[in-house]
Amino acid sequence: MAELRLGIVGATGVVGNEIIKIIQERKMEFKDIKLLASKKSVGKKVKFYNKDLVVEDLSEETFEDIDILLVAVNSDLSKKYSLLAAKKGVTVIDNSSAFRLKKDVPLIVPEVNSDDIDNHNGIISNPNCSTIIALTALNKINKYAGIKRMVVSTYQAVSGAGAQGLQELKEQISDLENNRDIKVKAFQYQIAHNLIPQIGPFNSDGYSEEEMKMQNEGRKIFNNPNLKISCTCVRVPVYRSHSESITIETEKEITVEKAREILSKSPGVKLVDDPSNSKYPMPLDTSNQDLIFVGRVRKDITSEDNKSLTLWCCGDQIRKGAATNAVQILEKVIEKKAYRN
Amino acid sequence: MAELRLGIVGATGVVGNEIIKIIQERKMEFKDIKLLASKKSVGKKVKFYNKDLVVEDLSEETFEDIDILLVAVNSDLSKKYSLLAAKKGVTVIDNSSAFRLKKDVPLIVPEVNSDDIDNHNGIISNPNCSTIIALTALNKINKYAGIKRMVVSTYQAVSGAGAQGLQELKEQISDLENNRDIKVKAFQYQIAHNLIPQIGPFNSDGYSEEEMKMQNEGRKIFNNPNLKISCTCVRVPVYRSHSESITIETEKEITVEKAREILSKSPGVKLVDDPSNSKYPMPLDTSNQDLIFVGRVRKDITSEDNKSLTLWCCGDQIRKGAATNAVQILEKVIEKKAYRN
Repeated sequence: MAELRLGIVGATGVVGNEIIKIIQERKMEFKDIKLLASKKSVGKKVKFYNKDLVVEDLSEETFEDIDILLVAVNSDLSKKYSLLAAKKGVTVIDNSSAFRLKKDVPLIVPEVNSDDIDNHNGIISNPNCSTIIALTALNKINKYAGIKRMVVSTYQAVSGAGAQGLQELKEQISDLENNRDIKVKAFQYQIAHNLIPQIGPFNSDGYSEEEMKMQNEGRKIFNNPNLKISCTCVRVPVYRSHSESITIETEKEITVEKAREILSKSPGVKLVDDPSNSKYPMPLDTSNQDLIFVGRVRKDITSEDNKSLTLWCCGDQIRKGAATNAVQILEKVIEKKAYRN
Repeated sequence: MAELRLGIVGATGVVGNEIIKIIQERKMEFKDIKLLASKKSVGKKVKFYNKDLVVEDLSEETFEDIDILLVAVNSDLSKKYSLLAAKKGVTVIDNSSAFRLKKDVPLIVPEVNSDDIDNHNGIISNPNCSTIIALTALNKINKYAGIKRMVVSTYQAVSGAGAQGLQELKEQISDLENNRDIKVKAFQYQIAHNLIPQIGPFNSDGYSEEEMKMQNEGRKIFNNPNLKISCTCVRVPVYRSHSESITIETEKEITVEKAREILSKSPGVKLVDDPSNSKYPMPLDTSNQDLIFVGRVRKDITSEDNKSLTLWCCGDQIRKGAATNAVQILEKVIEKKAYRN
């Protein structure tokens, strides 16, 4: 892989920054790395192994000498640059929602559907954070029992709104602590000591954009167009791990014991489920690492058969929910030689 | 009602204190009020209208000259004093879980089942906070369409653990803000910037005590022994309002429009449901008042018929979730002359 030339668009954002960190943790080597960002970040130096990389400006020419491009900017910017890069023969791994539901764009959680990478046409999409977390957790249970319905309530960290979101919670807590007026910018309302049941705009059925991603992306990743997911997405005053309370209904019977056995062997998952000793996943324990912690596994007591389970999972939104998953896709692309050159 | 002699056990706790506040807000008058608490609070003065009441010690003799007793202490203490008082002919309104599921003890949410008060045998129970909030919200929808199943995920404030819980979140935030070590006492783990998916001990099926209360108490209050509720209860770093994400299945069809119409006229409920203008219930808005705010009402998109809805509600845990509901029961007892004398 030392022969490949890598580019990272949005290198100075929260996710871009974490991608650079994870590439070094995993000791990945490239022939060349180009860090790209908007004008205001150009010239910034970023430590990479023992070199200083200088952030460069984005332009059409930039993509001439890049083989694989990781894109970690918003949907509008991604639409512009990902298409441009793909047209020039670059293989793009895009973190935004811009292309996720397009037919010729694989949407990948490596533990679940890495073979779908083979069908890419220049762009591969990284799913939404809460979707990655839920689907990594449920992957092997789905393979065993066939999930047909999910009811999900999320508890989403402020990092989902990027550096601004992290900063806003920190500042509001400090301002309230010091009897100063708070500022509200990244979220609709004060998030410190509060909950906001809105992530993204609402559709005419009353579901938020974030809530619909779970079903729309979940169907594609699990390759099950009939999968039904009803989701309530809530922003909580937690810094960087998302948590989800999930009830599933399956085609086939599955006991709690079987589910625990499956989860204990699921890739990317750590089973933390010992209620009598108060062991269960919590956002503080799951931050700054890559596994999805799953626990509180129990039979859905509203169901009469053995086809419904309830569980609780937590995962770092910036890492497995975004940056780590993107780097895992990058690794798979390299392993499969699925880049164009 | 000026002829009645009232007693309050646990007068210096968070709920007892709020009960005293609410009685004055509602301008209720009594011939005599006795504030009772444990030894360490005896002698404390509490403002009541323009008098200073002195907190007295609990003893068997205390109950001789009381007609109605509000009890706001833990289950163990309540078992002792409520039974003692009831034996002496006092009508007891108990806030603890000690008697809630006993056959001859009415379990009351005044908006829902105040007629059940008539059957009391000395003790009337005030339900669990998250149960009161959900059932006040769903009361009229249940009457219209018959709720048969509920899947609930809660977001519960630290006030549920009393003064200690409130203090612990405040101190942890301040300690973290000032780079001091935090103390963990009221909860199992750090609650600041975290979530704890445990409220009370777990049963052998993996459900916490708090989670089972919703079904056990819900069946009694809605007078429906077949009601099925699966609940996930989570402590969140919010001070005093509980929030709940609820999916219901009903016997009869009910549209979103009909549900909104019913909610807009439901006693004790405020419909706050205008997603396009980012209007929905939030814990900050619902603290220090008595209504349960309900919003995010929408069709459960995993359901094919019109018999499943999803909604979000918030209510003040100390007030409607405890103290206000107890005072409303007191008002009903007086109105119905359902006290013994």
